Amino acid sequence: MKTHHFVADKWHNVLGSVPASLTVESGDTVITETIDAHGVDKDGVKRAPDPNPMNGPIFVVGAEPGDALKVEILRMTPIRPTGWTIASLAENVVDPEAAGKLPPRDKVNWRIDLQAQTATLDPVVPGLEDLILPLEPMIGCFGVAPALGQAFSTATSAENGGNMDYRGFGPGTTVWFPVAAPGALFFLGDCHATQGDGEIVGTGIETCFEVEVRLTVEKGRGLVWPRGEDATHIFSVGNARPLDQALQHATTDMFNWLVHDYGLSPVAASHLMGQTVRYDVGNVFDPAYTMVCRIEKRWLPRRF
Amino acid sequence: MKTHHFVADKWHNVLGSVPASLTVESGDTVITETIDAHGVDKDGVKRAPDPNPMNGPIFVVGAEPGDALKVEILRMTPIRPTGWTIASLAENVVDPEAAGKLPPRDKVNWRIDLQAQTATLDPVVPGLEDLILPLEPMIGCFGVAPALGQAFSTATSAENGGNMDYRGFGPGTTVWFPVAAPGALFFLGDCHATQGDGEIVGTGIETCFEVEVRLTVEKGRGLVWPRGEDATHIFSVGNARPLDQALQHATTDMFNWLVHDYGLSPVAASHLMGQTVRYDVGNVFDPAYTMVCRIEKRWLPRRF
Amino acid sequence: MKTHHFVADKWHNVLGSVPASLTVESGDTVITETIDAHGVDKDGVKRAPDPNPMNGPIFVVGAEPGDALKVEILRMTPIRPTGWTIASLAENVVDPEAAGKLPPRDKVNWRIDLQAQTATLDPVVPGLEDLILPLEPMIGCFGVAPALGQAFSTATSAENGGNMDYRGFGPGTTVWFPVAAPGALFFLGDCHATQGDGEIVGTGIETCFEVEVRLTVEKGRGLVWPRGEDATHIFSVGNARPLDQALQHATTDMFNWLVHDYGLSPVAASHLMGQTVRYDVGNVFDPAYTMVCRIEKRWLPRRF
Amino acid sequence: MKTHHFVADKWHNVLGSVPASLTVESGDTVITETIDAHGVDKDGVKRAPDPNPMNGPIFVVGAEPGDALKVEILRMTPIRPTGWTIASLAENVVDPEAAGKLPPRDKVNWRIDLQAQTATLDPVVPGLEDLILPLEPMIGCFGVAPALGQAFSTATSAENGGNMDYRGFGPGTTVWFPVAAPGALFFLGDCHATQGDGEIVGTGIETCFEVEVRLTVEKGRGLVWPRGEDATHIFSVGNARPLDQALQHATTDMFNWLVHDYGLSPVAASHLMGQTVRYDVGNVFDPAYTMVCRIEKRWLPRRF
Repeated sequence: MKTHHFVADKWHNVLGSVPASLTVESGDTVITETIDAHGVDKDGVKRAPDPNPMNGPIFVVGAEPGDALKVEILRMTPIRPTGWTIASLAENVVDPEAAGKLPPRDKVNWRIDLQAQTATLDPVVPGLEDLILPLEPMIGCFGVAPALGQAFSTATSAENGGNMDYRGFGPGTTVWFPVAAPGALFFLGDCHATQGDGEIVGTGIETCFEVEVRLTVEKGRGLVWPRGEDATHIFSVGNARPLDQALQHATTDMFNWLVHDYGLSPVAASHLMGQTVRYDVGNVFDPAYTMVCRIEKRWLPRRF
Repeated sequence: MKTHHFVADKWHNVLGSVPASLTVESGDTVITETIDAHGVDKDGVKRAPDPNPMNGPIFVVGAEPGDALKVEILRMTPIRPTGWTIASLAENVVDPEAAGKLPPRDKVNWRIDLQAQTATLDPVVPGLEDLILPLEPMIGCFGVAPALGQAFSTATSAENGGNMDYRGFGPGTTVWFPVAAPGALFFLGDCHATQGDGEIVGTGIETCFEVEVRLTVEKGRGLVWPRGEDATHIFSVGNARPLDQALQHATTDMFNWLVHDYGLSPVAASHLMGQTVRYDVGNVFDPAYTMVCRIEKRWLPRRF
Repeated sequence: MKTHHFVADKWHNVLGSVPASLTVESGDTVITETIDAHGVDKDGVKRAPDPNPMNGPIFVVGAEPGDALKVEILRMTPIRPTGWTIASLAENVVDPEAAGKLPPRDKVNWRIDLQAQTATLDPVVPGLEDLILPLEPMIGCFGVAPALGQAFSTATSAENGGNMDYRGFGPGTTVWFPVAAPGALFFLGDCHATQGDGEIVGTGIETCFEVEVRLTVEKGRGLVWPRGEDATHIFSVGNARPLDQALQHATTDMFNWLVHDYGLSPVAASHLMGQTVRYDVGNVFDPAYTMVCRIEKRWLPRRF
Repeated sequence: MKTHHFVADKWHNVLGSVPASLTVESGDTVITETIDAHGVDKDGVKRAPDPNPMNGPIFVVGAEPGDALKVEILRMTPIRPTGWTIASLAENVVDPEAAGKLPPRDKVNWRIDLQAQTATLDPVVPGLEDLILPLEPMIGCFGVAPALGQAFSTATSAENGGNMDYRGFGPGTTVWFPVAAPGALFFLGDCHATQGDGEIVGTGIETCFEVEVRLTVEKGRGLVWPRGEDATHIFSVGNARPLDQALQHATTDMFNWLVHDYGLSPVAASHLMGQTVRYDVGNVFDPAYTMVCRIEKRWLPRRF
């Protein structure tokens, strides 16, 4: 088990089967600095074009289609004292009649206090003088190469992950992606200091992080959608439009998970989900929306 | 301020402009026993037909179109030691290809321990031997008569409330409905012992409660959608299909709330919502789905 | 078989179980003058409030829930030399980013040449000097009372019909509605001189007609959705949002029609629909959208 | 202007930036034989894997991002006396409750009479003894490489075209695609002998054609979505889910076309579209659905 300090010198705006920038063994840890959604690094230098330039891909030896790539998010350390957001709700998250009355989509600055681990608007906006947000770091966009030699913009998401903008993708969370290309080809970037559900202004607080992840191949898992786990919950992720379809994907995946891996009958899985499931909204800004279906671990069958 | 012990002897399957069963003054409290979603009372007697028969309507003196009816949910006491659910996920919450493989939509029984405040499957289902759910009472369906002399089935929801099946509608929560008919004409019923997000089997644990609510008219509030508040959050409710549109309604309403009542500029409201908003999924089973947009009170401008 | 000259003196903004304005026998013909979507009659007098005030309801003796009401549209004669439309695409039919750039939703006038049976903008709009549209009369909103004592705004549509704004509802077409209340309670109004698919500016050319319809009860048909027939096609109508769901309703209904009434096996019905079906878009402006699924009669099994 | 007889010997399951199989000059004509959606050629030999293997890409000299590739469909000659379809409606086009009752998705055979230009089920299916469908050849999947180095499965569609399954893409139609990669990289395949709207069984009658197209670069057109023209209409194509969004894309594109190329004011474009537009449904089977917005040429401003 090695630790790789991976210094990216090129970035990608797609998740796809492009040549690997780093090769690691299953179980290795990677530490890397990400740039922000507009390609600006921790020193304020524009290093890559929009949207959401990714570090990677990382080729994980032994990963083959049908396997899962387990990604443990071990640490996210903010490394830039500034972030930015957009100053208006996105047109697609409000009623069509209200879309024309929204403010301009200006870019505004936030001060990130790396000591106190907080973010504040800079300059302050009248009415929000007291808004001091605690950092809740998360990875906005990550995943693996999709099937068939496809390549998807980092502005969207699909079975292979991508720009899901889910607040749950922070330190302490483990995520599994369905491997669809040799070596999995793992990408990551677009990290946020914090974010509301839905990323409804089109951004979290966009900044740079040093991210530490452990990458492990799990053979023959046969996943369809990304799955995750944190201290208290397991969760399935669906990416699609409309949100109803993202919810169908996540719900179906959780059902299959409970039946195939947890050994519940379809009836038992229905009972458990019907009375305990929780839904979280990831991105509702991008071409594909993200819905997360989660269950508290204490409700899962005992032997797991 | 009076307290009314309201014993319903007829029930309604629509929210609409039907003759009032009770008239109260603004600020009065009503205590009433609800029957379950299939019209069965606490003694196991079928009292009314499906779907979701409602107690009411209650005419609140002084309520006029343009006003808000404030409903404080003061108490929900379970009064029947049994509940029921459906044994399968609904077809519309899974991928279309999976819909045909779901188990039959059988009705199953739960034992409700009124002392311990828990619910357990009765008989127990293999794999769920340890599933002891704490009661989290909530009102599945409530609201006021809609505008124009319309009348809507209690199987769906709209601007006037209705069958929203949101877990947040429990004791301690206050809800405001947009009054659209003289006297508001308040209805309630379809209470659940607990429920997962989305009501994805088509039911919570359906049972009977003694519910205590305080009804107060707030003049000229000009609401469009139901709004609510609990100990920690304020929230707006959107009811529509697809879920995307429900989310648009709830998001637009929260934006308008922050701008008009909390005095934030559109830019400030966007910032606040973009980085702090949370979405909850109500019903995704009925003709109209429910999405809730909430904000933690600690982020609201200080003077409120 | 009688012919009734029905002169409305009150109008309704809902389809629901309101007292009948006229009672007819099954097979009778009704001739009536409609007012426009804003309630203005052929003489320019405002007679009723928005939206879409309806003539009716007409009680058809013998119609009971489970029956179908057959409505033959025998004739539509325009009776006002003016019509009006809205001067901008609706916000909900364009991309959200484009919604704010649309022109104002002004009301504009059209001249209707009752002799030549054409409509022209009045005053003419630059660039459209040559736009002389032939009249293609259609009923924008009609249907019967819904089930359960519900009542729905004439701004929307459902299983009982309503504001479907389908170009196919013109003279020569026969429509069947699912009866859900005693007497069916038939309503009609909101007639258009012509209209594009989708009613994407929110109006057709709104004007007044003398409409002649024959109303016949067909016992025990057990319809779910409106169905229709013209010289060349049979069609099923679905009303819902999103359009995908309206399409699902219409497609399912056509499938059931072919299997239950035309005696096709599910496989044969699939083949026929898969290779010959056509879809038409009704309203995509109102709360519920309308999708029509039609099949050319020449492809139907011979014995019909 | 050259004519190329292009014999494909490899096929692609994505539209993307893969090495060109043929290079042509702007204005050249290409004649090529396509294989069917399962990769079977005119002799019944499986030549390539699913889904929808494409001939191409064809590099068109001079095509650059921002240009349009004009594709004239000059001829489609069926070259195999057999075709196939699927024997059941797709689960996603019917109501969720009906999805589980559909027949199995078996593959069935059609006889194609190359002389009479007709297709018949082989063996015949009871109830459809008289079903003799005239051939209406169309290209199911074609388009150009998408932007950013993306690559999309031929099972879906996007701004760059792809698997749109629109009946209008037959001989005599001209289509313009937005060029997003040098050389445009044109692909085509998945041709159908005929098809109902929506491709609701998941297939048209899948077979092989000799297709003749002329490819011409139009500089700096700045298209966003595919556009087309036939003898009587111009049309814009939107690809997305839900169908509502596909309709928004197509509607917005037609509006922009009328304003920017036909010189209409936004008000005039709204009037024209509102009263004359027609919508056609392409594919409602694949991840992205297709909606077409068309206008009859006789209504366009005179100078065009």
